[in-house]
Amino acid sequence: MVAFGVNDLREEEILVAPPKAGEVRVKVICNALCHTDIYTLSGQDPEGLFPSILGHEAGAIVESVGEGVQSVKPGDHIVPGYTPQCKGSDCIFCMSPKTNLCPKIRGTQGKGVMPDGTSRFTLKKDGTTLYHFMGCSTFAEYTVLAEISCAKINPEADLEKMCLFGCGIATGLGAVWNSAKVEPFSTVVVFGLGAVGLAVVQGAKALNCTKIVGVDTNPKKFEIAKQLGCTDCVNPKDYDKPIQQVLVEMSPTKFGYDYTFDCTGNVDVMRACLEASHRGWGQSCVIGVAASGKELATRPFQLVTGRRWLGTAFGGWKTRDAIPMLVDKAMKGEIALDHFITHRFEGMAGQKQAIEALHSGDCLRAVVRYAPYTPPPRK
Amino acid sequence: MVAFGVNDLREEEILVAPPKAGEVRVKVICNALCHTDIYTLSGQDPEGLFPSILGHEAGAIVESVGEGVQSVKPGDHIVPGYTPQCKGSDCIFCMSPKTNLCPKIRGTQGKGVMPDGTSRFTLKKDGTTLYHFMGCSTFAEYTVLAEISCAKINPEADLEKMCLFGCGIATGLGAVWNSAKVEPFSTVVVFGLGAVGLAVVQGAKALNCTKIVGVDTNPKKFEIAKQLGCTDCVNPKDYDKPIQQVLVEMSPTKFGYDYTFDCTGNVDVMRACLEASHRGWGQSCVIGVAASGKELATRPFQLVTGRRWLGTAFGGWKTRDAIPMLVDKAMKGEIALDHFITHRFEGMAGQKQAIEALHSGDCLRAVVRYAPYTPPPRK
Repeated sequence: MVAFGVNDLREEEILVAPPKAGEVRVKVICNALCHTDIYTLSGQDPEGLFPSILGHEAGAIVESVGEGVQSVKPGDHIVPGYTPQCKGSDCIFCMSPKTNLCPKIRGTQGKGVMPDGTSRFTLKKDGTTLYHFMGCSTFAEYTVLAEISCAKINPEADLEKMCLFGCGIATGLGAVWNSAKVEPFSTVVVFGLGAVGLAVVQGAKALNCTKIVGVDTNPKKFEIAKQLGCTDCVNPKDYDKPIQQVLVEMSPTKFGYDYTFDCTGNVDVMRACLEASHRGWGQSCVIGVAASGKELATRPFQLVTGRRWLGTAFGGWKTRDAIPMLVDKAMKGEIALDHFITHRFEGMAGQKQAIEALHSGDCLRAVVRYAPYTPPPRK
Repeated sequence: MVAFGVNDLREEEILVAPPKAGEVRVKVICNALCHTDIYTLSGQDPEGLFPSILGHEAGAIVESVGEGVQSVKPGDHIVPGYTPQCKGSDCIFCMSPKTNLCPKIRGTQGKGVMPDGTSRFTLKKDGTTLYHFMGCSTFAEYTVLAEISCAKINPEADLEKMCLFGCGIATGLGAVWNSAKVEPFSTVVVFGLGAVGLAVVQGAKALNCTKIVGVDTNPKKFEIAKQLGCTDCVNPKDYDKPIQQVLVEMSPTKFGYDYTFDCTGNVDVMRACLEASHRGWGQSCVIGVAASGKELATRPFQLVTGRRWLGTAFGGWKTRDAIPMLVDKAMKGEIALDHFITHRFEGMAGQKQAIEALHSGDCLRAVVRYAPYTPPPRK
């Protein structure tokens, strides 16, 4: 599925070159569409490149490996990671327990090429070189990844579910558990009840948070939010007052909430999110990616009186260490995933149906299966 | 010293009423002038009230106590705290180890009155009621404080030094030790090398921070900053590039500094301060109080890539527990204070000389002694 330009996505035959040293060629089994793909396809992403192969939340099986690759072999099941983990002893980011932001291939990944500066994709009909995307490019039956972007998972796991750990769901859970390090029995607000926001709700519920308030302008999201753990749901459209004021007034202490999460990408919501956090110790975590050029703002007083503003990228998870662990937890039933998959499609053309579904507002995740794949029998 | 209006400070005879229940009347021995006093006197503080008695960084001796007061008695030496500590089991802020922001008397303190809603100050010549300031009002030979604002200290400590723990020095040290919880051997940047900034430098030096960069537009501050622990000093005026870029480029990892502190109150500096903090884990602490109506801002990307924005009020110290402990450390020589006192004056009129000194740019703290006082002999 080649993105030739703004909202111009077409099914084409492409050539996927063999993996070079340190690279892995994989057969993509399934892809879960994420808003970031649509954001780039829409032309709003100033760093978006065309023509390119989008997609970054997938399940795949290793087809071949390049020179020196040791951590995966053909046949291994993997989830591609858009944040790599080089594990190098010279990588201050991989060595630090505080971050997952390995910058090893950041430069080339941002330029839409593999670490050696070239692409593995060409359009079959005329030889046009196609850009890679987020180090993944999973809108294709085959793709090439850096070895350090491949999280090897249990081959008995159902790839059609585990692909969700490639982005949104892992991000929401990790925002709670890693980035904000929410404490048990805390009070929490989640702005935006899409897949990421609902994963935040699940993460908070797992910590026995005593109040979990979901905020969304679409009340259709409230039912599933309450099923997953929201104790209250609030629609800002129902109030004339600023939503942060509404929320603080309904907080148990009347001083705000211990932890608040923005899953909207809207900088005005990010401000409300900070200002709804608790005087003295509230932490507010930005998860959503904001439109280019937008800035978040607040009065310094909000920080001086004890609120903290932080953010998360991929929930702070170190890709290759964490995704296999999350998969194991899901297999044991400790993390529920089924409810996120609201739509399923087949074949490469299913990607367009997935986009329509995600735009509809009723969709959490639309998973498109590219290749015949029999998930392991349910235990 | 009555503040009758904007920059209208006059020595007058006033009546200081006896303490009511839960209150303490103290004889103020000395006062160290802080920029916040001048800020309010200048009329820039939208919540500033006139006519009032300013001043909030002082050393005092209890003269009499009101009904029910048990934690101090006449003759005790105290440092007034502008942030009280009620220690009530129903005070979620006093009970939390995460904050010092006891709100017990916040409402009345902000309105310039004692907890019962009235003032203890009247102008002798015409009976005009005068407002209190920050719960302290130490530009007077006597003042009345809430008991919960009185930090009782070792009577052998030199009040003319220990008064510094009433605001700026405690704030700078606490920003490092409590609010940001700086780790040993970290890298640090401090914006603004006044008394608060230099206390941050001392706090960082005590943690063996390996790089401590001081930033100020007045290079006269660099000598003392280096004596106290700065490894580098930078004047933004020497560069055409944004100072955060200059700082990141000179950082050991080229990714910024582990902890950065703003001691300027300028929201543009607060932004630079955040953006100079380390990708992945940097923490940036706002200490300076910004001018009314100003907002801090940055791109959400700065947070999503791992920087955290926080603030501090009185360095996170719980007034009554912490000030006595800081005093003990200073008496043992663990915290050096002498270098902060660059100017000394005598008598109430000395307050005007102190203001001139603080405006000069060469002053860190100007201490005014009101009453005859013989500090204990130096050990």
